[in-house]
Amino acid sequence: MSEFDLINHFFKTSALPRDDVLQGVGDDCALLAPPPGKQLAISTDTLISGVHFPQSTLAADIGYKSLAVNLSDLAAMGASPAWASLAISLPEADQSWLANFMQGFNELARTYNVSLVGGDTTCGPLTITLNIVGFVDEKKALKRNRAKAGDLIFMTGTLGDAVTGLNAILNKTPLDKNLQYCVQRLNRPEPQINAGLLLTRFRVAAIDISDGLLTDLNHICTASKTGADIFLNQLPLSDSLKQYYAQGDHQPDWQTISCGGDDYELCFSCDAQSADEMLKLFKAQQIKVTQIGHMTSGMKINCIDAEGKVRNLQNRGYNHFNEKQ
Amino acid sequence: MSEFDLINHFFKTSALPRDDVLQGVGDDCALLAPPPGKQLAISTDTLISGVHFPQSTLAADIGYKSLAVNLSDLAAMGASPAWASLAISLPEADQSWLANFMQGFNELARTYNVSLVGGDTTCGPLTITLNIVGFVDEKKALKRNRAKAGDLIFMTGTLGDAVTGLNAILNKTPLDKNLQYCVQRLNRPEPQINAGLLLTRFRVAAIDISDGLLTDLNHICTASKTGADIFLNQLPLSDSLKQYYAQGDHQPDWQTISCGGDDYELCFSCDAQSADEMLKLFKAQQIKVTQIGHMTSGMKINCIDAEGKVRNLQNRGYNHFNEKQ
Repeated sequence: MSEFDLINHFFKTSALPRDDVLQGVGDDCALLAPPPGKQLAISTDTLISGVHFPQSTLAADIGYKSLAVNLSDLAAMGASPAWASLAISLPEADQSWLANFMQGFNELARTYNVSLVGGDTTCGPLTITLNIVGFVDEKKALKRNRAKAGDLIFMTGTLGDAVTGLNAILNKTPLDKNLQYCVQRLNRPEPQINAGLLLTRFRVAAIDISDGLLTDLNHICTASKTGADIFLNQLPLSDSLKQYYAQGDHQPDWQTISCGGDDYELCFSCDAQSADEMLKLFKAQQIKVTQIGHMTSGMKINCIDAEGKVRNLQNRGYNHFNEKQ
Repeated sequence: MSEFDLINHFFKTSALPRDDVLQGVGDDCALLAPPPGKQLAISTDTLISGVHFPQSTLAADIGYKSLAVNLSDLAAMGASPAWASLAISLPEADQSWLANFMQGFNELARTYNVSLVGGDTTCGPLTITLNIVGFVDEKKALKRNRAKAGDLIFMTGTLGDAVTGLNAILNKTPLDKNLQYCVQRLNRPEPQINAGLLLTRFRVAAIDISDGLLTDLNHICTASKTGADIFLNQLPLSDSLKQYYAQGDHQPDWQTISCGGDDYELCFSCDAQSADEMLKLFKAQQIKVTQIGHMTSGMKINCIDAEGKVRNLQNRGYNHFNEKQ
């Protein structure tokens, strides 16, 4: 099967119909009609086999996650997903691998009405670069620079599952049901699109915490010229992660949990006056959200433990070039 | 230097200012304001070291070409360039390499007013994926499916330089001034943006011939349900390529010239009535354009030599998976 047949077979046939896609896969460019009065949010993420996911990851999970990590960037801007372009390098033209990849991709694409409009297929080490476009109402995009000292800090979902799942795979730990849950969270993160859309009603600073809570919160602090106090015992842990630590008779490893990354949740600041209304809306939509600290006028992030002591956690998430520097 | 510093240093500082870029590199997404009444043309191309360019290629040439190949896709739709997102995988965080890469990229970005609005930097084998967005007036985009039997076939520029330059590099042939010109055409292709914009005034079928003239013309034929007669002795060769063949006392190698690829020229059909006006406009803008054949009602492409004989040229350009099939 030639490159062009591959593209036609797997990409053209799997593109979701959308009225604003005038021409999708199959010409030099896709042709798209942006809705009047909206701004566009655009993001690009690359996933490399063995770097961003273990080489043993199933094709369907890679397809799902490629889209999920990009949707998470749209969520962090409060944007509605629309169009995706997929550049994929494959060591060989493996049809069953591609079919499974697209099945995982399409599962999530259908949920969020994302249409695959173009891309490029090349021969090389397994690498996926997805570019995604979403819409956001004028002046409603969530930015990083809107936090103020005194704002409350919240996050959606739970923290630390993905890194615990990843470590289990890398260490070849047998997967009990708690670790299975963590691996599921690693492979199938749920982008917080609905939470992002809801937050556009408020003036908040927001970010997705894919690089680790502390690294990403630090981006908010830098952009907003604030600091933050984070209360470790308020960090939301899943029942599975709690049981995982309880089984080993361990305390939660806050370093790993707060810096591990790959949690595609949103972290955001919200002023205290708006917090009640915000929490009510999250509750009505059944989206889990937890207060984890507050912004300060200091220029650093303090992680405070149950005894009120500041813990010295390395404020570093995943950084692609650290190991070589 | 960390990944984030790299991004800030090289990408943020090099982004061209444009009024429609509300926020560029530095948040979860770029925020962009599309112009009212325009459609968007979006394209993605991946370049892999050792596959799409020789490993010896200079960083500045790679930067230039990464943008050029994407601009060529916009040219083939008749679109005006606007925004680019750059995903780059690097084996190591080599600052001088990146500085040179961006210098080549920016040289072309300035010419066509392209703003770098986002991207992703990862550690891996050298791979560049660029996503580009351009604007096109409603219903003015150039499509592949508009050719009719009897239409004349034209191409911009000259054919076969890039593949000749590539072969010289791969065969380690000493580069005389003719081959130097060919290598320059390989590394620094000029995207035919102005030709594409000019063609939006006519109802033409157009494509860029990056995969080889015959392969890409075949895409027009398939989409338009036509065939084509191509006259080999009308194919436009540069003076350098003519001298290259003359020196070796060879006839032009039509197989290599018509199928070699990496010529970022446009091939298009135009009905005979409009051709004069079209040619006048090209002449006024000093854009080289040559008639090379005409569309037929047959379903195949005939390559006809100076004696009127149909030559059996393999109608295959570069295909990433062919070698493994």
